[in-house]
Amino acid sequence: MDNASLAIQFFLQIAVILVACRVVGALAAKVGQPQVVAEMITGVLLGPSLFGLLAPEAQAWLFPWDPTQQTRDTSAYLFPISQLGLAVYMFLVGLEFRADIIRGYLKSSLAVSIAGMVVPFALGAGLAWVLYHHTELFPERTSLREAALFLGASMCVTAFPMLARIIHFKRLGGTTMGTVAIGAGALGDVAAWLMLAVVLASFDGHLSRSLYNIGGAVGFVLVAFFILRPLLARILPYLLNKEGKLSDGGLLIGLALMSLGAWYTDSIHLHAVFGTFVIGAAMPRGAFTRDLVARIEPLAVALLLPLFFTYSGLNTQIGLIDSWALWGVCAAVVAAAMLGKWAACSIAARATGLSGRDSMGIGILMNARGLMELIIINIGLQRGIITEGLFATLVIMAIITTLMASPLFEWLVARHYEVSEDHGIADLSCTGDPTVEA
Amino acid sequence: MDNASLAIQFFLQIAVILVACRVVGALAAKVGQPQVVAEMITGVLLGPSLFGLLAPEAQAWLFPWDPTQQTRDTSAYLFPISQLGLAVYMFLVGLEFRADIIRGYLKSSLAVSIAGMVVPFALGAGLAWVLYHHTELFPERTSLREAALFLGASMCVTAFPMLARIIHFKRLGGTTMGTVAIGAGALGDVAAWLMLAVVLASFDGHLSRSLYNIGGAVGFVLVAFFILRPLLARILPYLLNKEGKLSDGGLLIGLALMSLGAWYTDSIHLHAVFGTFVIGAAMPRGAFTRDLVARIEPLAVALLLPLFFTYSGLNTQIGLIDSWALWGVCAAVVAAAMLGKWAACSIAARATGLSGRDSMGIGILMNARGLMELIIINIGLQRGIITEGLFATLVIMAIITTLMASPLFEWLVARHYEVSEDHGIADLSCTGDPTVEA
Repeated sequence: MDNASLAIQFFLQIAVILVACRVVGALAAKVGQPQVVAEMITGVLLGPSLFGLLAPEAQAWLFPWDPTQQTRDTSAYLFPISQLGLAVYMFLVGLEFRADIIRGYLKSSLAVSIAGMVVPFALGAGLAWVLYHHTELFPERTSLREAALFLGASMCVTAFPMLARIIHFKRLGGTTMGTVAIGAGALGDVAAWLMLAVVLASFDGHLSRSLYNIGGAVGFVLVAFFILRPLLARILPYLLNKEGKLSDGGLLIGLALMSLGAWYTDSIHLHAVFGTFVIGAAMPRGAFTRDLVARIEPLAVALLLPLFFTYSGLNTQIGLIDSWALWGVCAAVVAAAMLGKWAACSIAARATGLSGRDSMGIGILMNARGLMELIIINIGLQRGIITEGLFATLVIMAIITTLMASPLFEWLVARHYEVSEDHGIADLSCTGDPTVEA
Repeated sequence: MDNASLAIQFFLQIAVILVACRVVGALAAKVGQPQVVAEMITGVLLGPSLFGLLAPEAQAWLFPWDPTQQTRDTSAYLFPISQLGLAVYMFLVGLEFRADIIRGYLKSSLAVSIAGMVVPFALGAGLAWVLYHHTELFPERTSLREAALFLGASMCVTAFPMLARIIHFKRLGGTTMGTVAIGAGALGDVAAWLMLAVVLASFDGHLSRSLYNIGGAVGFVLVAFFILRPLLARILPYLLNKEGKLSDGGLLIGLALMSLGAWYTDSIHLHAVFGTFVIGAAMPRGAFTRDLVARIEPLAVALLLPLFFTYSGLNTQIGLIDSWALWGVCAAVVAAAMLGKWAACSIAARATGLSGRDSMGIGILMNARGLMELIIINIGLQRGIITEGLFATLVIMAIITTLMASPLFEWLVARHYEVSEDHGIADLSCTGDPTVEA
């Protein structure tokens, strides 16, 4: 398939994805699910698992897929744009990140974050041990240690951006519950990325390199907050125009720094999303960040981000889970992921002095894995650490844990909870018309 | 080069391109050139012609290029995003297109448009005849008729979006001169695209198919304006929220229709830009189009569009023009393109009753070929109609004709011209901080 004729499908793919996301999003909104969950599911539905099952030829024509990557298939076109969309989105999350709120609840956040990682990690590693010996879900090349590390890391991750969107969606922005969950989610995701860096370094046979990666990550955060931020604060007048609004030059500097951050963290084998998030969080607050969000967000969230979520889903072949044994594995993975995270986070929150209801809510919120899970398992599949069957299982886990967060929260917590005023954390979905989404 | 490591360069490429565009743009602004010209030149400078000459290894590392397209090179990543950026940009130009203004000057616009096409086309075709027999600038596969049609089409094109930006930049929005030039540019570009469709159909050996293409294009315009527009006008309340602003659903419908238009015109072998422009122009005016522009424009113009212009320039190897004979050809192409367009447009404008100064100005403005020229010659190179040497020559022609437009205009026209109030045509560059650019 030549360049020109794939370009044709490319625009049709975009149109189909956007419309499908909207339709699924409208249905999801009726049952209280945020748009981001709908986009993830849309990808799975447009992939081989539904569209490909109902109309295999139409699906293969619209989303051509070449596993050998010899020709330019769907991934050649959607992949770069989905990566850019994700990088821009995490930059927005960073721009809206409020370190000041988290500082007040640092002890609880730390406790929830650590407990919420250690327990699911141990469960994941244990499960990996069982699966490694009794199934063929890991390729031969993968060692037991790598399998344990990878499944552990993919169990203990929290979808920080998804958490932020759900907390906004539920109007918990300024509450204790929301703040601790946000703080723990941020800390936990940084740790999960570092763990993934260790797994990947080990998988490449350069375990010592992971020390270099971790050092590079710590150095990056320090440079961003203690050199870049004061520097930008000093030249802030040049980034704003006479009316005190973001100038074109300021927008350019923001986007260029974002790209540099993505490049750097990619080059030390952390994912680009970590870099754009840190750069966003380190931007000096005020008109600069507010206008950056206002200028970047609409197109990024309406056009680029759905392409990422859908692209991830397109990779998924739920049909690969083709036996009762595999469905059993799937159930075990989901149960371990959910119960482990929920129990550990709730107990840690309660132990650091939060109320029973707050603790329960935090445990449920921390379970939404969506985005990060998809990124990690995509990397695992791409690098050959896991098989497509395990990939499909983990996609289901990501979807179920994310899908459950909202209704569980409503059922166990929200009914008894005083809804607070919105404190403006991560409003990344409700631009212009909150009524459509809510 | 595997996926992951190219993704790394990808973000560094974006950072370098954005910063380089800004630096060149600041220099260009000092001599009265718009940002869009700077972006075109930046691409050439970052390609083999300057960066590659000074630091060949660094250039090859940062922008890897694989002419066999067996591996995923720079084009694999930048190409899809640059296509998307261009499609979105032409959608914006369509959204800001004011058919009402042009109607009042239809006679002059038509005359200028036709004259401005016929004369350069004849010159281009004549030149192709000479070059075809005396050089090796056309590959063997290309027939004389195709060579003549292609060079003719690439000579007679006007860069409609660039024209719009320059006219805005010069504050000529509501003047007779600006209006006639915009109208003629729009009509001329549609004709040039249809001509290109004929060339491509002929090149593929399906000349009869071009009739189908032309019919498809006419049908598309009719459907867009006489079915889509009234339909959208009727459901407009559903596209706006309670405050009368664009809803998320409305934004989505706009973007999905844009993508469908791009897909359709691509599939009838017109370029996607034609489709997005027509869809944009057919959107019902008012809050809907105004908010669409406000939501889409900032990120598209700051991030996506520079990637397109730079990507086009990266293809260009000015070093291929390596003999006096070739530079002679280059001079002949530039002279024929500029004088032909200028004389024909000016005379046509004067003949339909415009003042001498207006006519002079229109002739100069119509010479800015930039964007469209680059698209057409990229297609020509990609399809093997022209050689890389002729491609480089035509890039130089595009840059010189575009570069000359502003200073020539200042020198011959603007000094004596009353600057009018801005009537808001195609403000696609000055979001937020016009002072930086102007």
